[in-house]
Amino acid sequence: MTKPIYILNGPNLNLLGTRQTPIYGAATLADLDARTSARAKGAGFATVFRQTNREGELVDWIQEARERASAVIVNAAAYSHTSIAILDALLAVDLPVVEVHLSNIHRRETFRHHSYVSAAADGVIVGLGAQGYELAVDAAVALVQSRAAKAP
Amino acid sequence: MTKPIYILNGPNLNLLGTRQTPIYGAATLADLDARTSARAKGAGFATVFRQTNREGELVDWIQEARERASAVIVNAAAYSHTSIAILDALLAVDLPVVEVHLSNIHRRETFRHHSYVSAAADGVIVGLGAQGYELAVDAAVALVQSRAAKAP
Amino acid sequence: MTKPIYILNGPNLNLLGTRQTPIYGAATLADLDARTSARAKGAGFATVFRQTNREGELVDWIQEARERASAVIVNAAAYSHTSIAILDALLAVDLPVVEVHLSNIHRRETFRHHSYVSAAADGVIVGLGAQGYELAVDAAVALVQSRAAKAP
Amino acid sequence: MTKPIYILNGPNLNLLGTRQTPIYGAATLADLDARTSARAKGAGFATVFRQTNREGELVDWIQEARERASAVIVNAAAYSHTSIAILDALLAVDLPVVEVHLSNIHRRETFRHHSYVSAAADGVIVGLGAQGYELAVDAAVALVQSRAAKAP
Amino acid sequence: MTKPIYILNGPNLNLLGTRQTPIYGAATLADLDARTSARAKGAGFATVFRQTNREGELVDWIQEARERASAVIVNAAAYSHTSIAILDALLAVDLPVVEVHLSNIHRRETFRHHSYVSAAADGVIVGLGAQGYELAVDAAVALVQSRAAKAP
Amino acid sequence: MTKPIYILNGPNLNLLGTRQTPIYGAATLADLDARTSARAKGAGFATVFRQTNREGELVDWIQEARERASAVIVNAAAYSHTSIAILDALLAVDLPVVEVHLSNIHRRETFRHHSYVSAAADGVIVGLGAQGYELAVDAAVALVQSRAAKAP
Amino acid sequence: MTKPIYILNGPNLNLLGTRQTPIYGAATLADLDARTSARAKGAGFATVFRQTNREGELVDWIQEARERASAVIVNAAAYSHTSIAILDALLAVDLPVVEVHLSNIHRRETFRHHSYVSAAADGVIVGLGAQGYELAVDAAVALVQSRAAKAP
Amino acid sequence: MTKPIYILNGPNLNLLGTRQTPIYGAATLADLDARTSARAKGAGFATVFRQTNREGELVDWIQEARERASAVIVNAAAYSHTSIAILDALLAVDLPVVEVHLSNIHRRETFRHHSYVSAAADGVIVGLGAQGYELAVDAAVALVQSRAAKAP
Amino acid sequence: MTKPIYILNGPNLNLLGTRQTPIYGAATLADLDARTSARAKGAGFATVFRQTNREGELVDWIQEARERASAVIVNAAAYSHTSIAILDALLAVDLPVVEVHLSNIHRRETFRHHSYVSAAADGVIVGLGAQGYELAVDAAVALVQSRAAKAP
Amino acid sequence: MTKPIYILNGPNLNLLGTRQTPIYGAATLADLDARTSARAKGAGFATVFRQTNREGELVDWIQEARERASAVIVNAAAYSHTSIAILDALLAVDLPVVEVHLSNIHRRETFRHHSYVSAAADGVIVGLGAQGYELAVDAAVALVQSRAAKAP
Amino acid sequence: MTKPIYILNGPNLNLLGTRQTPIYGAATLADLDARTSARAKGAGFATVFRQTNREGELVDWIQEARERASAVIVNAAAYSHTSIAILDALLAVDLPVVEVHLSNIHRRETFRHHSYVSAAADGVIVGLGAQGYELAVDAAVALVQSRAAKAP
Amino acid sequence: MTKPIYILNGPNLNLLGTRQTPIYGAATLADLDARTSARAKGAGFATVFRQTNREGELVDWIQEARERASAVIVNAAAYSHTSIAILDALLAVDLPVVEVHLSNIHRRETFRHHSYVSAAADGVIVGLGAQGYELAVDAAVALVQSRAAKAP
Repeated sequence: MTKPIYILNGPNLNLLGTRQTPIYGAATLADLDARTSARAKGAGFATVFRQTNREGELVDWIQEARERASAVIVNAAAYSHTSIAILDALLAVDLPVVEVHLSNIHRRETFRHHSYVSAAADGVIVGLGAQGYELAVDAAVALVQSRAAKAP
Repeated sequence: MTKPIYILNGPNLNLLGTRQTPIYGAATLADLDARTSARAKGAGFATVFRQTNREGELVDWIQEARERASAVIVNAAAYSHTSIAILDALLAVDLPVVEVHLSNIHRRETFRHHSYVSAAADGVIVGLGAQGYELAVDAAVALVQSRAAKAP
Repeated sequence: MTKPIYILNGPNLNLLGTRQTPIYGAATLADLDARTSARAKGAGFATVFRQTNREGELVDWIQEARERASAVIVNAAAYSHTSIAILDALLAVDLPVVEVHLSNIHRRETFRHHSYVSAAADGVIVGLGAQGYELAVDAAVALVQSRAAKAP
Repeated sequence: MTKPIYILNGPNLNLLGTRQTPIYGAATLADLDARTSARAKGAGFATVFRQTNREGELVDWIQEARERASAVIVNAAAYSHTSIAILDALLAVDLPVVEVHLSNIHRRETFRHHSYVSAAADGVIVGLGAQGYELAVDAAVALVQSRAAKAP
Repeated sequence: MTKPIYILNGPNLNLLGTRQTPIYGAATLADLDARTSARAKGAGFATVFRQTNREGELVDWIQEARERASAVIVNAAAYSHTSIAILDALLAVDLPVVEVHLSNIHRRETFRHHSYVSAAADGVIVGLGAQGYELAVDAAVALVQSRAAKAP
Repeated sequence: MTKPIYILNGPNLNLLGTRQTPIYGAATLADLDARTSARAKGAGFATVFRQTNREGELVDWIQEARERASAVIVNAAAYSHTSIAILDALLAVDLPVVEVHLSNIHRRETFRHHSYVSAAADGVIVGLGAQGYELAVDAAVALVQSRAAKAP
Repeated sequence: MTKPIYILNGPNLNLLGTRQTPIYGAATLADLDARTSARAKGAGFATVFRQTNREGELVDWIQEARERASAVIVNAAAYSHTSIAILDALLAVDLPVVEVHLSNIHRRETFRHHSYVSAAADGVIVGLGAQGYELAVDAAVALVQSRAAKAP
Repeated sequence: MTKPIYILNGPNLNLLGTRQTPIYGAATLADLDARTSARAKGAGFATVFRQTNREGELVDWIQEARERASAVIVNAAAYSHTSIAILDALLAVDLPVVEVHLSNIHRRETFRHHSYVSAAADGVIVGLGAQGYELAVDAAVALVQSRAAKAP
Repeated sequence: MTKPIYILNGPNLNLLGTRQTPIYGAATLADLDARTSARAKGAGFATVFRQTNREGELVDWIQEARERASAVIVNAAAYSHTSIAILDALLAVDLPVVEVHLSNIHRRETFRHHSYVSAAADGVIVGLGAQGYELAVDAAVALVQSRAAKAP
Repeated sequence: MTKPIYILNGPNLNLLGTRQTPIYGAATLADLDARTSARAKGAGFATVFRQTNREGELVDWIQEARERASAVIVNAAAYSHTSIAILDALLAVDLPVVEVHLSNIHRRETFRHHSYVSAAADGVIVGLGAQGYELAVDAAVALVQSRAAKAP
Repeated sequence: MTKPIYILNGPNLNLLGTRQTPIYGAATLADLDARTSARAKGAGFATVFRQTNREGELVDWIQEARERASAVIVNAAAYSHTSIAILDALLAVDLPVVEVHLSNIHRRETFRHHSYVSAAADGVIVGLGAQGYELAVDAAVALVQSRAAKAP
Repeated sequence: MTKPIYILNGPNLNLLGTRQTPIYGAATLADLDARTSARAKGAGFATVFRQTNREGELVDWIQEARERASAVIVNAAAYSHTSIAILDALLAVDLPVVEVHLSNIHRRETFRHHSYVSAAADGVIVGLGAQGYELAVDAAVALVQSRAAKAP
């Protein structure tokens, strides 16, 4: 049976759609869950969609994904810019990783331009809002299929 | 009914009064709770006074404050210097924010000179020990009243 | 009649598929043209697909796009990291802009981590190879439709 | 007899209340003089309240305060960020020092984030407008009383 | 009646024409006064031409200009590179500001390349010697007329 | 016969007057041509006025000016900040050089504060819009006359 | 009764022996527990051996060690490089502290070269794999005995 | 038949021998062509000797060399210090590459000390004027022969 | 008649001998005046000994020295580290200049390590307290005599 | 026969035990020799223990160790922070290398935080005084045995 | 009689051909001696070929060369990057100087990119292995002949 | 009996008076020996005057001075800027230390502005040529006498 795609969201993303919508858009976290779930289902994948404000919990979930997921999509939000722990967890995971950000972090404060997560990701999608999550699902699916095709 | 002022304390502040008193002073966290509670009561405000060693828990509490508090006083301690997650939580909160530090961080190691919290605070009070907390209450009260005066 | 999507490629991308395939993948530029053309057609858009080794020619084409395109997808390759002229051309263009890179530039040399183009792009997609171009088409289409929906 | 508290103001603060009120507030320098004078009187202290556009004059006044003041409150304005001479004068003064800024300097241009004065101050209060001056008086009074209590 | 144009000169410019003429040219300060006075008169403006070695005095004069001048031309000389106080004074003045330097500061020591004044100036003219002052008068006149044309 | 003044314009300046007019002003490139031509004619000089988006073409034209021009006015726009090739071309030209920028580059993004061109220019005029071009003509004329006066 | 030695392990160390063994070695966390326990027992000490992915939990445990441990051995892993909170907890603990890293962090990415923990440690042992933990026990024991010898 | 050695020259090198001879020497580009042609002929190689002021043209020629040359000698002049596009072209070419500079760039302005080309070159020869070109031919010949010797 | 040696002292040096004597020594400014006067008299020179807290006054005095002094000894104190205006004044003075500092500035805070004055001084003497002033007189005398010997 | 372990000590370590004992401890170099000799003997190894103030002599000895030693323990003292020559010698030696420092260099001046030696060492032990040398012997022995175990 | 060419080699070059041959090549130091001797002989020059691990000895030899050599070829190896003493010795020598490196230092660690020696060299040849030494002889010979031609 | 003053000179100072006299002056090292010897004799001190090109030998001599000298005067020349080993030797010596430089290092290349020696020196004298050595003797004598006066 195909393992699900883990979609892991970091701090303050639970506020989506209720605050700072000019930056982050009007979609709520539930909307993102629904849209990615639908998109993945179309490609034959289930999703596990979670959010936490804890850096350590993101580390836990990434470790959990090692056994249970076929790919990881991660929006580590603020922790993207500061967390080597998350980077290390991703480096220890031998799965396709797609990083996603709702806003274009390169147009914001300088301290948001660098993401530790990027060094562990196969692909990165930024600035495309809720659609970016759907594209990340497409990318994750393709990466899983590409790996399967290469496996002996 | 007036909402309380949230007073949120970060890592290692539970040790106050028992260690490194030349830097942090002799007041315990309970003393700070009592003094700020008394000060706020004089202005007609209750307080919610908490401490945690977890960055994510500070994020949770700041988010909680959005609905339940009239203002936030925050001493994020070590996380002040490293946490964009706390900064983002504060930016998402449309409340008066006063940052407070017991010691004068500008006289200590260079890595303590910059605080991410300051970018989300209305005012900042540093180096004044336990009294600084009381002044922060005064400031928070004034900011709440000023906003109320401006509201339609 | 709907204007086409301009897909503009920078220096050395004409060598795609013949060199350094571990970094850039096996797809040739013609493959990318075919795949993006097909993808766009599915959404009702034609494409204009070009490549040049000249910075100034990229500037010319972006200016041309102002009148003739509905959106711009740009992989400025090496010029991404050095060209303020391309940035300025994109800033002068009032169209949806999606930046795309075949390889994950954040995992390569430090001088490839920063892209001037990103400051003028709505969204950025990196590291997803040829599929990244298709996702960029999806993104461009959605951005065009979103603008159209908002227009009076 | 108790010596007064010196409240020393630096360049361009004579324009307060007439320009850039979104940054500095509507209070004039005379307002600040009146409010701090009243606040100090309540604690049994007189105030000496001055303003100058000259760096050297601030140095003179701080030196004068050594003999004649019980504490110094200083808003060195632009000179905070550039004057080692003022820092040295404060370091030579064995009195309580409270630094105050009307606006939150940490939210403004980078060159306003660092203050030489902070290295010579006991406490720092920023971003709280005219109220910040009153809180500085409270802090100065407490520092004077605390020293007196410790004196043999 | 039209207010005059203030032309304010900073430290060591009183030595013009007597020292380091390969850098600063042979014109004396009196020559500059005469040439700018003539140029302004041709456009219907008087000039107030002053020089000082004091940073604070420059601040005073800029503040004075707020009421009495129609525009400010400033050559802050060495203070250009170090004075936030002069920057703040200019920011508080709602007048056309033209910065001028006799020598091309960008060809000299690195510490002369940055000018705080530039951030408060409408235009900047450097390296054109005494003629640069005349062009600054032309620019100031045009800026005054342009503002007048826009005023209701 | 007097050689003309070359006025060379860099990338995206062909868009003048049609985009981003709050930054660059309403004058078109044709307006600038007309105004500088008139101004130069008054001083007995013809002008050669060109624009290109190519860095190499600017280098070509500067080299051409060595033989055919009496002075060079250059607005290298975005290339000002990145092109050592243009700097080298100007260094090889033994003619008066005046650099001009329509907007005040010192008030914009940090990467626009430094211009390689300035190191090869006699004078620099920034932030004065279309009038800046006219003043540049005045400056170029004066520099040519000054050289002629010094020639044996 | 002698208090135990606390051996505290940070994020992702629970994966030891299962991933990236060329970097971290083949020993599992249980192996490390067994080896340090045996080593300490030989010197008359028990050990408390824990691992967590949470920064805040490490802070909690270090605080707990203040009362219950005779020494602390800490491998904060990724948090070594980013956590001032852990540094502060260690600074507040008046116990011998030995920092240990399995891999030689000075041979890895630049962001792993600096450890905040080192500023609070008596000794640091890096790059010696599982044996490094045993040596850390030796060091901790010696530090405890040395302090005891100095105590009155 | 042996393929020729490409000798590619960047911006402003067409001015050689006519300007700034103290820096670049008295040899003209034609002299360099003649000397390198002679030198190569002695080793059994023809040369293709070109110069351009266009970055993109250098990229074109390097790409062309992939099929038609046995080695590339490149003096990218000013583009050496700024062009990642040329670096990428060279990285894509599987040929011996020798970089040459007429002047000793390490004794000139700081911005000339770093060359992107060096990262793609086998060898680098600087400061030896026209002779440096001849030595570069020797080096290129030796590298070609060494590769041939290693080929199966 | 021989012109005197100017000995010019900067901010806070009027406090010498009364504060921070571990850093600056027990000698008062009057002591320094007496000792340097005696030393100079032995070599046939009078002295002019002054102190000011004003940067601009130091500039004035240095300009005055141009006509009236045979040499300048300057301890610009805090202004040494920040004043380009004083540097420029000294550069305009064609006299021997000796810089002196009572304390060893290289052992103090980093911002005291660099002195603009040093770039305009013939010699620099630091860390030798009051004796340093006497040695500076010796040095100034020798420099004056050396220049006289070289004069025609 | 087993080759000895080389223990090489750098500049000023001959003064151990006689100066700055709060930093370096009371053990003399002879003590370290005796303790490491005993420790190594217990594991079946002899030691060669040397000290020099010469960088080049350290290079010589490391080269000598290539043939004659089974492992190298090096405390390069001050040269650790400045010597690429020692780094290169160690990189050329195919032996286990353990770096040791008596004091915790990470708690001292910034210029002592980086060691070139670390980039060539298997393990690094700092801050543990004389015991650190013994632990280094343990580590060296284990590394030798581990290599032997892996050898065919 | 013609003086010989000094060829001076720095630390660890005595190991050439026996270690790290992928970086430094298979030629031994004796090979380099033989090849350069032969090359120089062809031009009528003898060579003095030496190697040392001591920085000071390189300084001695360079000083010796002042009287006894006609030119200096220097490969200071690791000392290239750290030795101002060698730079100063070369600056004091009024002879042609050619710097040579076997490997392309610009493709290695960042700390190898800068060479103090380059600032005192006429020419620099890097990355061409043993042939680079021969080319350096050619260059030295040409520089000697060129100087002789210019001598009166 | 009074111990002598050690005067220790670093690399290339043996060339004094024969090269680069515009920078270092015409005095030879023998002249400096004679002048300092005479100056010290006048104060009742002998001198030990040495020069070496070896960093390690300077370290040796400084260590020797601990037992045999009453003070150390050191001109470490190029090693001043790079040698922590010399700094450490001086820190280990409990004697008066005066640093001297013939030229004004603050007017030369940036890498000569910082001296590690200064951090271990009581006083520093730069730019005063041979006289600077005599003044250093005066300073050393005074420091010795001052210490003697303070000794019990």
